[in-house]
Amino acid sequence: MAPQDTKSTSRIAIVGVGQVGGAVAYALILGSATCELLLVDVKVDLRDAQVRDLSDVAYAAGGTVRVRAATHHEAGQCDIVVITAGSKYSLGETNIQHMHRNVSVIRNVVKAMTPFRSDAIVLVVSNPVDLLTSIAQEVSGLPKSQVFGSGTFLESVRLRGLLADKTGVAVNSVQLSVLGVHGSSQVVAWSSATINGIPLHKVVPSDGFGHDQLAAECNERAESIFRTKGSTPFGIGSVVASICASISFDRGDVQPISHFQPEFGCCFSLPVVIGRRGIMKTIKIPLEAEENAAIARSAERVKNVMKLGS
Amino acid sequence: MAPQDTKSTSRIAIVGVGQVGGAVAYALILGSATCELLLVDVKVDLRDAQVRDLSDVAYAAGGTVRVRAATHHEAGQCDIVVITAGSKYSLGETNIQHMHRNVSVIRNVVKAMTPFRSDAIVLVVSNPVDLLTSIAQEVSGLPKSQVFGSGTFLESVRLRGLLADKTGVAVNSVQLSVLGVHGSSQVVAWSSATINGIPLHKVVPSDGFGHDQLAAECNERAESIFRTKGSTPFGIGSVVASICASISFDRGDVQPISHFQPEFGCCFSLPVVIGRRGIMKTIKIPLEAEENAAIARSAERVKNVMKLGS
Amino acid sequence: MAPQDTKSTSRIAIVGVGQVGGAVAYALILGSATCELLLVDVKVDLRDAQVRDLSDVAYAAGGTVRVRAATHHEAGQCDIVVITAGSKYSLGETNIQHMHRNVSVIRNVVKAMTPFRSDAIVLVVSNPVDLLTSIAQEVSGLPKSQVFGSGTFLESVRLRGLLADKTGVAVNSVQLSVLGVHGSSQVVAWSSATINGIPLHKVVPSDGFGHDQLAAECNERAESIFRTKGSTPFGIGSVVASICASISFDRGDVQPISHFQPEFGCCFSLPVVIGRRGIMKTIKIPLEAEENAAIARSAERVKNVMKLGS
Amino acid sequence: MAPQDTKSTSRIAIVGVGQVGGAVAYALILGSATCELLLVDVKVDLRDAQVRDLSDVAYAAGGTVRVRAATHHEAGQCDIVVITAGSKYSLGETNIQHMHRNVSVIRNVVKAMTPFRSDAIVLVVSNPVDLLTSIAQEVSGLPKSQVFGSGTFLESVRLRGLLADKTGVAVNSVQLSVLGVHGSSQVVAWSSATINGIPLHKVVPSDGFGHDQLAAECNERAESIFRTKGSTPFGIGSVVASICASISFDRGDVQPISHFQPEFGCCFSLPVVIGRRGIMKTIKIPLEAEENAAIARSAERVKNVMKLGS
Repeated sequence: MAPQDTKSTSRIAIVGVGQVGGAVAYALILGSATCELLLVDVKVDLRDAQVRDLSDVAYAAGGTVRVRAATHHEAGQCDIVVITAGSKYSLGETNIQHMHRNVSVIRNVVKAMTPFRSDAIVLVVSNPVDLLTSIAQEVSGLPKSQVFGSGTFLESVRLRGLLADKTGVAVNSVQLSVLGVHGSSQVVAWSSATINGIPLHKVVPSDGFGHDQLAAECNERAESIFRTKGSTPFGIGSVVASICASISFDRGDVQPISHFQPEFGCCFSLPVVIGRRGIMKTIKIPLEAEENAAIARSAERVKNVMKLGS
Repeated sequence: MAPQDTKSTSRIAIVGVGQVGGAVAYALILGSATCELLLVDVKVDLRDAQVRDLSDVAYAAGGTVRVRAATHHEAGQCDIVVITAGSKYSLGETNIQHMHRNVSVIRNVVKAMTPFRSDAIVLVVSNPVDLLTSIAQEVSGLPKSQVFGSGTFLESVRLRGLLADKTGVAVNSVQLSVLGVHGSSQVVAWSSATINGIPLHKVVPSDGFGHDQLAAECNERAESIFRTKGSTPFGIGSVVASICASISFDRGDVQPISHFQPEFGCCFSLPVVIGRRGIMKTIKIPLEAEENAAIARSAERVKNVMKLGS
Repeated sequence: MAPQDTKSTSRIAIVGVGQVGGAVAYALILGSATCELLLVDVKVDLRDAQVRDLSDVAYAAGGTVRVRAATHHEAGQCDIVVITAGSKYSLGETNIQHMHRNVSVIRNVVKAMTPFRSDAIVLVVSNPVDLLTSIAQEVSGLPKSQVFGSGTFLESVRLRGLLADKTGVAVNSVQLSVLGVHGSSQVVAWSSATINGIPLHKVVPSDGFGHDQLAAECNERAESIFRTKGSTPFGIGSVVASICASISFDRGDVQPISHFQPEFGCCFSLPVVIGRRGIMKTIKIPLEAEENAAIARSAERVKNVMKLGS
Repeated sequence: MAPQDTKSTSRIAIVGVGQVGGAVAYALILGSATCELLLVDVKVDLRDAQVRDLSDVAYAAGGTVRVRAATHHEAGQCDIVVITAGSKYSLGETNIQHMHRNVSVIRNVVKAMTPFRSDAIVLVVSNPVDLLTSIAQEVSGLPKSQVFGSGTFLESVRLRGLLADKTGVAVNSVQLSVLGVHGSSQVVAWSSATINGIPLHKVVPSDGFGHDQLAAECNERAESIFRTKGSTPFGIGSVVASICASISFDRGDVQPISHFQPEFGCCFSLPVVIGRRGIMKTIKIPLEAEENAAIARSAERVKNVMKLGS
C-alpha cells in the first residue's frame, strides 16, 4: 500500500535514537500508539541497529507498528516529531558549553526538517528543554501551539507517584503538578494538590510528611538516576509515549508541558490541554505570589540565553 | 492444574447473568482482568447460553480468561463476587413491591453463598443499590469493608464525561463525584469539581453552563436509556469491570462507591480508596450544609426500609 | 476540531444497533480500535439509547472513542461500515420468508448509504451472511474486495477454542478454519489443522477425540446460544471488533472471511489476507475432493437465491 | 497490605539489570504483566538507579506494578525469576574465556537464590543460553520443567517477521520456528512453516525468495545489532515479557524454548507448551534427517562443555 493512501495511519518520527530515543520508541511500539515509526540519527550505524532491534519488538508485539530508518526531511512530514537529539556531558565540559552545544544541535536538526508538514506536532525532549523548545519554535516556522517540550511532566509524574505511595492511593487519583522552568528553579504547585479533586490537606494530616522533603526526595531520585545512567531513559520514554497518545487520539489530557508563554517570550511548563492540534489551551493555575516570582525569574534567564544565542 | 495451585489466578463470580451480568462479564474478558470467570444464575438455560457466548469471546481474545458455570457455593469462594441478580419491573408493579422483591432476591442469593471465603469481596450492582448493599452486608457475615455497591460511580463517570465534552478536556482530567443515596436524592459535589486539581470555576467561566442543567441532562440520559433498554448494561458493565480491576490489582483508586456509613447505620456513596481488601479508607469530602442535610435525609429513608425489611 | 482535519482518526459506522450491533460497539470501545463510532438505526429511540449507554462506556474507558448517532449517508463516508441490520425470526415465519425479509433490509440500508466513500470497507454480519454479502456487493457499487462478510470466522474461533481446551494449548497456537457457505453445509478444513504449524495428527493421537464429534459439539454450542438468546451477540461482537482492528491497523491477518469467489459468482468463506484495503489476497487452501464438492454444492444454492432475488 | 496476603499478586524477579534486564523490566511494566517487580544486581548503584527509573514508568503507567530492589534470596521466592546476569565480552577475551566467566556467574547467582520456592519458574536469558540453562537446572534443585531458557524464541520471532514482510501477511499469521542449540548451529524448521496452518510452499511460489537467504538476513540483522549495541535488549526484552505472560496467565502458548532434552542430557530449543508450571509438554516437530543430525552434533558440544565445567 502506498503511504499516501493510509489515511488512518499515524506516523511518528524520533530524531536522535540513543538511550532516550530508543526508550521512547520501545514504549510507543509496546503501547501500539502508532502505525509507522521513523528513526532518524546522524549516527547511521546506531540508527540501523535501533531499527533492527525495535523491529523485533514490533514483530513480537504482533506487527501493528512498522519501524524504519528515515531522513530528517521525511521526519518533518510525520504527524508527530519527537526530538531527543543532543549530547551527554563531555569530560570537563561546563554547563554553559554543554548548553551551547545542544542549542546548536537542535538548530541543525530542526532546520534539516524544514519545511514541516503544516499540521506536524514537534515535541522536544532534549535538555535544557525549555530553551531548546523555544529555539525549535523559532527555527521550525510552525505555529507555536504545535511545538512544545516534555518540560516538567516527568517530574510531575514522579512526585505524584511518591505522594501516592505515601498516602496509599493510586497515582491516577493524585493531581499535582511541577511547573515553571525545568531544573533547579521549578515550582511544585502544592496549593492545587488534590486527591481526586479533594484538597490534599483535607485528606492527609499535614504532619504526615513535609512538602519540601517530598520534593527533595523527588529531585534526589532524578539525580541518582542521572549519576548512574547519564539520563532517565525509561521514565522519559513512557512519559513521551503518553504525550504522543494524547496527541494521536486527540484526547484533551491536561498535563504540565513546556509551551510558549506570551508574557515572557519564552517556553516553560504550565498545565495545558493536549490534542491533535498540539496545545489546545493553557489552564490558568492559581499560584502564590512567591511561586509566581520564582517562575518569572527563571523565565527571564531562559529569555536572556535566547537573545545571546540568536 | 488443580485450582488450589493457581496462586496467581484471580477468580471472579458473576451472580445473575442477564443483560447487566452479561455486559459485566464481556467487559471483564475484553479487559483481561481475570483468569477465571464463574457465571451463576437460577435460570440454567440462560446461564449456559451466556457461558458459551462468552467463551467464544475468551477464545477470540486469545484465551487468557476461562468462563464456566458455577453454583452459588462456588461463587462464595471467589476473590470477587459481583451480584447483578434482581428483577426488572413487572407490569403494574409499584416501586415498593419491586423493592421488596429484590430485597428478597438478594437475601436468598447471598445466603446461598455463605459461608464466604474470608477474604472475598462482594460487589452489589442490583438496585436499589444502597439498600441491597446494606442487606448483603448483614447476610454475608463478611467484614463491612469487603461488601460494597456500585453506588453512584456510573453517575459520576457520566457527569465527568458530559463536563469533559463541554470543557474540551479528557474525561480522565476531570474530578467530580456524585454522592449520597443512589437515585433522586443523590448530590453532585460541585464544590470539589476540579480540572486536574484546579478548581473548575477557575478554569471555566461560570456562565458557560449551569450546574443544575448539566446534572439534569445527566439524569435525563440515564432515564432515556432505562425507558428503551430497561437497564444500562454497557455503562454499568464497564464501570464494574473497572472496580474489579481496582480490587484485583490492589490499585488504591479513589472513587465514589456505596459503603457502610457508621454514623447512619446504612450504605451510601462517598469517595473511598479501593484495593485488594475492599474499602481501604473513606475520603472525607467537604460538602455544604445543605448537601449534607440532603444526604442525611435520604440515608434515613434507607435505614427505615432496612428496619421494615428485617 | 473540524472532522475533515482529523486525519489520524478512524471512523466506524454500525448500521443496526440491536443486540449484535450493540455488542460490536461495546467491544470496539473497550478495545479502543477507533476514534469515532457512528450508530445508525431506523429505530431512533433504540439508537439514541445505545448512543447514551455506549457513551458512558467511552467515558469510563477514558474517552478516546466518541459515540454519536448518524444517518445512513454519514455511515457511507466512514472508513469501515459494519452492517448488523436485519430481523430475528417472527412467530411462524419460514426460513425462506425470513431470508427474503433480510435480503430486502440489506438492499435498503446499503442503497441508503450510496454513494460510498471510494475507499470505504463494508463488513456484513447479518444472516444469511454469504447471500447478504453478495447482495451488498451488488448494491454498494464498491470494488468487491472492499465488501465482505464475517462468514465462518466465529465458527473457526469457536472450533479452535474447543480444540485448544482438548489439547491443553493456547487458542492462538491452534490453526484451523471452517470454510464454505455459513450454516449447515460449512466444511472444517481438518487436513490443514496445525498446532503452531505442526500437523495436528502429529501432535495429538487420533483417538483423543473425533473430528466429527468436535464439529458437532461446536454446532451444538451455537444452537444452544441461539435457542436461548436469539443471537450470539458477544461472540460475534468480539470477532467483528477483531476484523475492524485488522482493517484499521492494516495488519494482514489471515482468517476465513466471506468474500467474492469469481468461479462461483457469489460469496463464501475461504482464508484471506485482511488489511486497510479490505481483502488483499485469497489464500488457496488444499482441500479434499469431497470437501470441495460440498462447498461447490452450497455455493450453487447461494447463487440460485441471488438470481431469484434480482 | 502484608505481602503474604496478596494471593492474586504475581511477583517477578529480574536478576541482572543492565541493558537487557532493564529492557525486560520496562516491557513488563508497560505490558502490566505483573504486580510486583523485584530487581536484583550485585552493582547496587545500577540496581537502585534502575529501580528509580522504572518506578517512574510504573507511575506513568498508572501504578499497577510496584518496583523495588531485592536480594537474591527474595528473588528465589518469586513466581518467576528472569536471569539476565552475565557479562559482555572484555577486550581480548576469547569465546572460551567469556563462556567460563558466564558459567561461573550463573552458578553463583542461582546458588545465592537457593532454596527456591518449590513452584518458582526460572527463565535464563544470559548467553550461551543453552549451556547456562543446563547449569541453572543442576544448581537450582528445581524440577527441570521449571527451569528453561529464552533459546531461539527471539530468532523465531525475527524470522517470522521477515517472512511476514516478504509475504504481506501479519506476523501472527506465520508459523515458523528456529530450533536446536542457539547460535551458529541452530536449524530453521522450514518443512513446518505455514501461513495460518497452510504449508508455506502452497501459499508462496518457491522462487519468491530463498530459505537460506532469509535465514542469512536474519542472522545478519542480529549481528549488526550486536556489533553496535553489544546486545539486543529491546528484542529480547519484549520476548521475555511475552514468555512471562504465558506463564503468569497459564496460557499454554506453543513456542520454541530451550529446555531439557532427556535423550541428550542437556538443554536446547524445541517447541513446547508453556504454562504456570513451566514446560507443560514438548511438541514433537517432524524434521529432516540432516536437521536432526545438525541438532544432535551441537547438543553433543553443549554436553561436553557441561562435563568440563563440573
